[in-house]
Amino acid sequence: MKFYIGIDLGGTNVRTLLVDEEGNVYSEVKDVTEREKGPDYVVSKICRQIDALDLSACGGINGVEGIGIGVPGPVDTVNGVMIMATNLPGFENYPICQKLADRYNLPTFIDNDANVAGLAEALLGAGKGYPIVYYVTISTGIGGALIVDGKLVSGGRGHAGEIGNIIVKNNGYKFGTLNPGAIEAEGSGTAITRKGKELLGEGAVSHAGNVFELAANGNTIAQGIVDEVVSQLATMFADIAHIVDPYCFIIGGGVMKSKKYFFANLEEQFNQKIHVGMRGHIQLLATELEDCGAIGAAMLPMSRLAK
Amino acid sequence: MKFYIGIDLGGTNVRTLLVDEEGNVYSEVKDVTEREKGPDYVVSKICRQIDALDLSACGGINGVEGIGIGVPGPVDTVNGVMIMATNLPGFENYPICQKLADRYNLPTFIDNDANVAGLAEALLGAGKGYPIVYYVTISTGIGGALIVDGKLVSGGRGHAGEIGNIIVKNNGYKFGTLNPGAIEAEGSGTAITRKGKELLGEGAVSHAGNVFELAANGNTIAQGIVDEVVSQLATMFADIAHIVDPYCFIIGGGVMKSKKYFFANLEEQFNQKIHVGMRGHIQLLATELEDCGAIGAAMLPMSRLAK
Repeated sequence: MKFYIGIDLGGTNVRTLLVDEEGNVYSEVKDVTEREKGPDYVVSKICRQIDALDLSACGGINGVEGIGIGVPGPVDTVNGVMIMATNLPGFENYPICQKLADRYNLPTFIDNDANVAGLAEALLGAGKGYPIVYYVTISTGIGGALIVDGKLVSGGRGHAGEIGNIIVKNNGYKFGTLNPGAIEAEGSGTAITRKGKELLGEGAVSHAGNVFELAANGNTIAQGIVDEVVSQLATMFADIAHIVDPYCFIIGGGVMKSKKYFFANLEEQFNQKIHVGMRGHIQLLATELEDCGAIGAAMLPMSRLAK
Repeated sequence: MKFYIGIDLGGTNVRTLLVDEEGNVYSEVKDVTEREKGPDYVVSKICRQIDALDLSACGGINGVEGIGIGVPGPVDTVNGVMIMATNLPGFENYPICQKLADRYNLPTFIDNDANVAGLAEALLGAGKGYPIVYYVTISTGIGGALIVDGKLVSGGRGHAGEIGNIIVKNNGYKFGTLNPGAIEAEGSGTAITRKGKELLGEGAVSHAGNVFELAANGNTIAQGIVDEVVSQLATMFADIAHIVDPYCFIIGGGVMKSKKYFFANLEEQFNQKIHVGMRGHIQLLATELEDCGAIGAAMLPMSRLAK
């Protein structure tokens, strides 16, 4: 059995685990991040967490194969640094992997939180056994991850899976730095809420779930929003399908709480928008794991060190 | 040095090569396919070609590592059969790999012609040395191929790279079984010619190159067509970039003959449509190899047998 240390470094909390190659958790330490104290302080906190883990299962730090870190934001996986760190001030280009690799003399890898969650789902969750998996999270934003033969394909600059920027509507809504009509601006939880407030009134909608519920209760305006969003999400899934033809999609994120209202329709429209020979062959699956960021991070060295 | 046999099986001609792992060709046999005589006959012809190769470089058939076949149309790479065979009647679900594997006692692989051309370009051509390559051909149709760490990612049903069906225009042109507004219906050579004939007159346009030339000579209608097509192609490249973040695109096909008229503009618009952190990092490269179908086919066993 091989053992890995996984670190889920968020803007609010930081969590460190000892995990084996099957995803079993042996020891866990969790603290507030205190990001305002800067990266050197946060890294010293992570080191204290690693030192505080019970490593008896693998006979101490020498029994660990590697360290993985999941972070919020795009990562330069080649140089092991964050490219953008809105939620972790000071971590842009900060040599976090180098620091931990030097301290523990272990190969250390970093990737963004959507990628590590996707890796966990592909290896241990809904995607177990599928050679090509595309993970998609539809939440505040929309992100994803490509896993081929158990290995995360992070891309040249760690941007593989930045699917929120895929264009699904010509001259559509412009949100932040995204393309006009990008799927994140049209079909994310944020976008569904925005459309709901616009067309149904501020008071009628406080989150995306309200729009789905109103549609299910016969509100035709809400139904119009749901129809448009499902069609746009189907376009995004079809685009991905034609580009990598995964065996399955694994779909998570807050919007999936409303799964019963839209999933069958999404599946139908997705299958209409892909080539005949692909129809019925690509599974659309819901995520199986909960809170899998740190476990997915632990899978990073396993994925990268695999022959 | 390792040696492979590559077969480029087209509707008109069939070509068989002995190739080494660096793409050097040692022996070649080419014949008309005579597809009308059916798959058994065509396979017997391929066997005659293999038997006719000069295999002295590798000391005979026992010195060959494997056989690869490139075919026009989608392939079930797991079962080694064509899924659709418009240009090779009778080859649908015909066990071509099994037949050759049994006859020569060699691992035998099949994939579609865009995928094998992309593999050749990734391993031996413009993509040499890049860990993630996306190959795109813009010709009569639009197709592509994903190559990760020297291995072709063909997809669950061999449809990875069927990018012609990516939607770039809502309620756009409907061509055959493609999605309305699919890039192949909007930005392929066929589509550019169609748009040209429609707006400039049947007599003014006989192929896509005419539209680019007219635009370059100041024809504002032709320029409008070029502007739309370049914007649509940029959308397709941006979609792919966000999904797999390749180190480079390798772009081939007949439309690239008009490269000088549109490529700089395509590169600029592509970079506008991707995330800031990706801009300038993804190379758009022209293909380097010519007529690389059979060499790419020979690379298939190398790619699939690689550890």
